[in-house]
Amino acid sequence: MSAVRTPDPNPGWLSEAELAETRARVPMLYVEAVPVRVDALGQVTAVGMLLRVSANGLTRSLVSGRVHHGEAVRSALLRHVENDLGPTAMPQLPPSTVPFAVAEYFPWPGFSPLSDTRQHAVALAYVVPVAGDCQPRQDALELAWLSPEEAISVVDEMEGGRGTLVRQALASVGRLP
Amino acid sequence: MSAVRTPDPNPGWLSEAELAETRARVPMLYVEAVPVRVDALGQVTAVGMLLRVSANGLTRSLVSGRVHHGEAVRSALLRHVENDLGPTAMPQLPPSTVPFAVAEYFPWPGFSPLSDTRQHAVALAYVVPVAGDCQPRQDALELAWLSPEEAISVVDEMEGGRGTLVRQALASVGRLP
Amino acid sequence: MSAVRTPDPNPGWLSEAELAETRARVPMLYVEAVPVRVDALGQVTAVGMLLRVSANGLTRSLVSGRVHHGEAVRSALLRHVENDLGPTAMPQLPPSTVPFAVAEYFPWPGFSPLSDTRQHAVALAYVVPVAGDCQPRQDALELAWLSPEEAISVVDEMEGGRGTLVRQALASVGRLP
Amino acid sequence: MSAVRTPDPNPGWLSEAELAETRARVPMLYVEAVPVRVDALGQVTAVGMLLRVSANGLTRSLVSGRVHHGEAVRSALLRHVENDLGPTAMPQLPPSTVPFAVAEYFPWPGFSPLSDTRQHAVALAYVVPVAGDCQPRQDALELAWLSPEEAISVVDEMEGGRGTLVRQALASVGRLP
Repeated sequence: MSAVRTPDPNPGWLSEAELAETRARVPMLYVEAVPVRVDALGQVTAVGMLLRVSANGLTRSLVSGRVHHGEAVRSALLRHVENDLGPTAMPQLPPSTVPFAVAEYFPWPGFSPLSDTRQHAVALAYVVPVAGDCQPRQDALELAWLSPEEAISVVDEMEGGRGTLVRQALASVGRLP
Repeated sequence: MSAVRTPDPNPGWLSEAELAETRARVPMLYVEAVPVRVDALGQVTAVGMLLRVSANGLTRSLVSGRVHHGEAVRSALLRHVENDLGPTAMPQLPPSTVPFAVAEYFPWPGFSPLSDTRQHAVALAYVVPVAGDCQPRQDALELAWLSPEEAISVVDEMEGGRGTLVRQALASVGRLP
Repeated sequence: MSAVRTPDPNPGWLSEAELAETRARVPMLYVEAVPVRVDALGQVTAVGMLLRVSANGLTRSLVSGRVHHGEAVRSALLRHVENDLGPTAMPQLPPSTVPFAVAEYFPWPGFSPLSDTRQHAVALAYVVPVAGDCQPRQDALELAWLSPEEAISVVDEMEGGRGTLVRQALASVGRLP
Repeated sequence: MSAVRTPDPNPGWLSEAELAETRARVPMLYVEAVPVRVDALGQVTAVGMLLRVSANGLTRSLVSGRVHHGEAVRSALLRHVENDLGPTAMPQLPPSTVPFAVAEYFPWPGFSPLSDTRQHAVALAYVVPVAGDCQPRQDALELAWLSPEEAISVVDEMEGGRGTLVRQALASVGRLP
């Protein structure tokens, strides 16, 4: 399992063997969140990017994780945001579950802009305003708040082509530089 | 001017004569907000509806008002929300200005589901979560928080066909009964 | 397998045993399409509803089917539309894969407005204009084109709460009566 | 009137004096279209850009124009697409009038990413698939079909910051390079 993605907090729900078997059979459903700071007008002022240790060294990543069997999309989104940003992040989940993008990750590089060596994953991606203090979990070294301009300047170094997703997120809120 | 719509807080910006002249020339740009309460998962739990005195008696209405010359859509939205719900409403304006619906009001009844006897108005309509205490202004008797089911049961009495807009708002957040 | 949903055209991709095992482990990713007729202005004039024989008798249904491992969402959408409406339907797939709704079906009735006794399924739902002649497959008796008003009058009889999804589709295109 | 924007086909509806007076009073409502070619899967393969003669020389532009008093947004969109791309363009107007972006142009440069020296304009922007032959009107020298990559490489030369809008359009359809 790549160190870039969030490990499932309940790995026992599926054994590694079951997970591997399932990944070979069907696309895996994920949620992804681009954490943002907003001003009183709702305008995005900063993008939160996690810095994690991966097999390729330090990499920027987003909040991301699997939707479990029997779990609502909203519940999975809140679970992963709280898991990655800590219990005092005060996320404002969107009233609608319609994502700003459906991100399709394929295990074959070059097949699409996004790739994930582990699996075929389809992620529902959301912009999530975060009002409180964020305390990234232990496998993340820090959460950096970057201006839209700064964020765009570093997204090309993200794994699996996720920089494209950050660009789409900023475009969806009218903040693409 | 109908008592149902919010009077412009700066009526001096355009005289009544200028406003009437302008209304005969071009569509007027409005913003509308459906105030909602949301739970920790972002799910809408209640819809805020204003009760106002109009020429036709008491009517339910939404937050609504004109976008001024030189004013950003976000600024107009915040201005009208604060004007109608008071300074402690703590609205969470959406990160994107893409509306859930473009509401077109024509002065000729029957021409479209929505009508406004005063003018041709085009409103950008948003769902706006409100976290604080709401104190409706003096021309509104009260702000009632209704469950989605209760809201749907009263929307047909709204003026100008605005009930359709409330249905669309609830559909956009997955809460249409 | 319920007769209401579209059987997978390549059932060999997963054996019944593998499919049952997988359904118990993860949410299954689906696409759903509400076929529509549009006029020159893009306005929806009619909704296409399939009439199928199910265990509960005749039921109305939408275009629906599973996204296969390694298959793009767009490809799955086109595959199921062509499978259900025939090769001369001339569907106009939307330029964006952002759905009008994320439909969450749970196997436990009452847990959510939508249910599917077979599985936990998450469907990306799209409105798909269809310009050509539709020839429903053999397990569907007919495809009926209904006006938005007529469609709303029959949606409550749809299985699994799918009527809610038709209402959301019509709301998203401004045609909810 | 800038040569970059489409002149109103019925200039008599408002005299130049009336138009100037109105522009000083209220934001003007516009529609803008990014014409695209799509493949059978709905995926955008090319972006149509008009080349026009403006006061600043040759410039790339989009389909754009004012919504008239009493005119529906859809009607204005079709009118301007047909006006700019000719009668055989066969545009597929979107089933929903919800735009991919609300583009706000202010007359003061630097106030926002988008500017229009003539006026405060608010444009509802749509991606419009075009299936037929396009014959640009006389004030446009040509319509060029560019790949998403080519389009992005020339958008910075567009007037009024409209390149940002093309980036947003491509992001909304998952084709931002």
